Amino acid sequence: MTSNSVSVDQHYDLIILGTGSGNSIPGPEFDDKSIAIIEKGAFGGTCLNVGCIPTKMYVYAADLALETRESSRLGIDAQVNAVDWPGIVNRVFDQRIDLIAKGGEEYRRGEQTPNIDVYDQHARFVAPRTLQTGQGAQTKTISADQIVLAAGSRPFIPEIIAESGVHFHTNEDIMRLTRQPKSIVIIGGGYIAMEFAHVFEALGTKVSIIARSELLRHLDTDLREPFNELADQRYDVHRGRNITAVSQNEQEVSVTLDNGSIVSAEVMLVATGRTPNGDELDLELGGIESTNGRVSIDEFGRSTSAQSVWALGDISSPYLLKHVANAEMRAVRHNLLNPENMKKMPHEHVPAAVFTHPQIAYVGMTEQEAREAGHDITVKVQKYGDVAYGWAMEDQSGIAKLIADKNTGKLLGAHYMGPQASTLIQQMITVMAFGLDVRDVATEQYWIHPALPEVTENALLGLDFS
Amino acid sequence: MTSNSVSVDQHYDLIILGTGSGNSIPGPEFDDKSIAIIEKGAFGGTCLNVGCIPTKMYVYAADLALETRESSRLGIDAQVNAVDWPGIVNRVFDQRIDLIAKGGEEYRRGEQTPNIDVYDQHARFVAPRTLQTGQGAQTKTISADQIVLAAGSRPFIPEIIAESGVHFHTNEDIMRLTRQPKSIVIIGGGYIAMEFAHVFEALGTKVSIIARSELLRHLDTDLREPFNELADQRYDVHRGRNITAVSQNEQEVSVTLDNGSIVSAEVMLVATGRTPNGDELDLELGGIESTNGRVSIDEFGRSTSAQSVWALGDISSPYLLKHVANAEMRAVRHNLLNPENMKKMPHEHVPAAVFTHPQIAYVGMTEQEAREAGHDITVKVQKYGDVAYGWAMEDQSGIAKLIADKNTGKLLGAHYMGPQASTLIQQMITVMAFGLDVRDVATEQYWIHPALPEVTENALLGLDFS
Repeated sequence: MTSNSVSVDQHYDLIILGTGSGNSIPGPEFDDKSIAIIEKGAFGGTCLNVGCIPTKMYVYAADLALETRESSRLGIDAQVNAVDWPGIVNRVFDQRIDLIAKGGEEYRRGEQTPNIDVYDQHARFVAPRTLQTGQGAQTKTISADQIVLAAGSRPFIPEIIAESGVHFHTNEDIMRLTRQPKSIVIIGGGYIAMEFAHVFEALGTKVSIIARSELLRHLDTDLREPFNELADQRYDVHRGRNITAVSQNEQEVSVTLDNGSIVSAEVMLVATGRTPNGDELDLELGGIESTNGRVSIDEFGRSTSAQSVWALGDISSPYLLKHVANAEMRAVRHNLLNPENMKKMPHEHVPAAVFTHPQIAYVGMTEQEAREAGHDITVKVQKYGDVAYGWAMEDQSGIAKLIADKNTGKLLGAHYMGPQASTLIQQMITVMAFGLDVRDVATEQYWIHPALPEVTENALLGLDFS
Repeated sequence: MTSNSVSVDQHYDLIILGTGSGNSIPGPEFDDKSIAIIEKGAFGGTCLNVGCIPTKMYVYAADLALETRESSRLGIDAQVNAVDWPGIVNRVFDQRIDLIAKGGEEYRRGEQTPNIDVYDQHARFVAPRTLQTGQGAQTKTISADQIVLAAGSRPFIPEIIAESGVHFHTNEDIMRLTRQPKSIVIIGGGYIAMEFAHVFEALGTKVSIIARSELLRHLDTDLREPFNELADQRYDVHRGRNITAVSQNEQEVSVTLDNGSIVSAEVMLVATGRTPNGDELDLELGGIESTNGRVSIDEFGRSTSAQSVWALGDISSPYLLKHVANAEMRAVRHNLLNPENMKKMPHEHVPAAVFTHPQIAYVGMTEQEAREAGHDITVKVQKYGDVAYGWAMEDQSGIAKLIADKNTGKLLGAHYMGPQASTLIQQMITVMAFGLDVRDVATEQYWIHPALPEVTENALLGLDFS
């Protein structure tokens, strides 16, 4: 079989590149289709193997260690004697994550999905809808009527670090260190950097952070400023700095900053953003438009240039969030099956959480964005410490910030920083998704007294519609 | 001045009996009214002084102590060295609660509310809308055009204990013990009993529980059964037992059960329910109907027998919940000001939480109630342990149970047992209050991955409407 003068070993109805969200496409509705799934790494993609899921397992242990350390404010004299880092690695990966990844691969290779072939080598386009990949040592060229690109993203490594030859870690291997480092220098100030900073500091590692701007710089100002102050108290933070040199000796890695200071630590974590994997796929040979590795798609998930090519998740989406990738996957799955009645990629009211300390979660606009968008707004910043459950927590820093449109009563943005932020936000996601009027939300339902959601109740009541 | 041949010292527009929720009635709208507030105890009532608020402050410390003890499952070797019980008492009462109660009283006695007089002695009716009370040593008889009864409830003490002469504690004094007891026997299996059982056991006191039936017997079966199993592992539980004798020596209190066994402990806590305070007010002299101390009211909060007499909160409400008392207060406040346009007492979708361990929260019907009400239902019990955040928690017992009407898609009941139950429930209260269709709630909004509300998402997705 040939396609554009390339010799093709096998043709499929559908090729799916990547097994993060992409692997959820083939359900019973696809049983009559021949499908190739390509995965050069572990089944499950970034989220399962090196992202959201294992990080939360580390974060939760870190939360508890930190709470134990801070329990004297509550009248509890408690201490962390030791952290069993290898035990955590074992619990997270050997006993949980790796089994799921392996199970996922075995399922796709097994008898229950006889219509699916698995390819385990890197893939690149050699012609439209035609990819060269492989199975073990065997190179194979395969083509399909439809192709779904769901190959994700990878850590971006600044040139000065990549070219230094210095040993560094990323989210892909930092959680599998054989022992907990005494010190770590984290390059970056985004959510991955802040989650690992919390994890390591809480577990007893000395943490230095080097960031070009403020930490979590995209946050609403009322969260960003106190977050940065709290970070200064906890970590050795070098903010607004660029790196001029990186070196290494037997004991440690050293980073020289543009103000001449040198930051040294036993290990280095690079968390300076992510880059979509499209640049590794020879997309141009498939006729697929992209920008810096990000596949260009329309509102339905279709390549803007190549017919019957789709993309979802980090390779095409600016969100870099698993729940967005999953939602895009559901849209693309629907659209593959219902070309006459397609659904748009759902990009409204996208929430996010940062599982650092304090925990952060938000949905919708920041106050500044709401003003810039021309809304006549009302804003309330409610402290956890001013509701009864916050008293119980002896909480000093938690806040909920709500932003609503004065004319419509609609919620424009919700921002939480503090315990259970990622749980509290979900109610506000509902409010936004269903277009409820915040004046009714405040008063037309019960709020359990004295539970933590009274933070939200008081924030809602504090919105001024006069 | 006289009223029905009783000599009246002063007549008011409004008398409010009790300063729990009742104290929130006089706002600016009442500035032109003469008001008497009667409070024989501490300002703020049960919730502030001996109820929901201080208990949560003990519970949160207990939560943390228990989490520390159980942290080895997460790879953290931590321990509680000691509990500073007097420090907790000081923090909760001297530094917080007592200051608020005192501030509340000073405010009402002060210049900012010149239209309000405070009476600080026990009150009882001597004629319709006429009460005998006092200020310090001075007895006063006062009357009013309108009377609001908000005098709450008190612990119910079984006769066998009351008559034994044995020293016992209730929620009113147990939190102010000068030192933490080595052992405690708790009489009762309701929410107050279960909150204190958790507090004391977590802080290191040996806890025995004597209950006539199952613990938290009103819970949905799918929560009640595992809760009772967990309680058996943690406490010395004597279930389905009546008390036949109570005695005391210098060291301990001993309780003899109807099976002959004897349960002894350093202190005894009686938490066998609450009784409304109407029986202490000579209501019949005010022409006010009541049953076992509970004032009979109509849907607007008016006495069913006495004109211009209102009641709210535990003295008249079967709910015994602060958020209900507050909601009833808002209705009565509105009705006092708007007699031509009254609001009903809001008794729909009333949620509750039990801040024990595991934490419990619920709203709406149990499965059994929904079936008995004739609904065609769909039910899903979702384990925390089957979502990613539950993996991070290494949670073994958490569940969310949702019950929906198959025909309407409306949520009939939501029941949570596990971490953050009282936060998770709030979103379901919103769903119920606004009549959202659970099929839309599951799919028409984002759920942050991997945050704890995925327990709810999966419970919703598990409801079967086929």
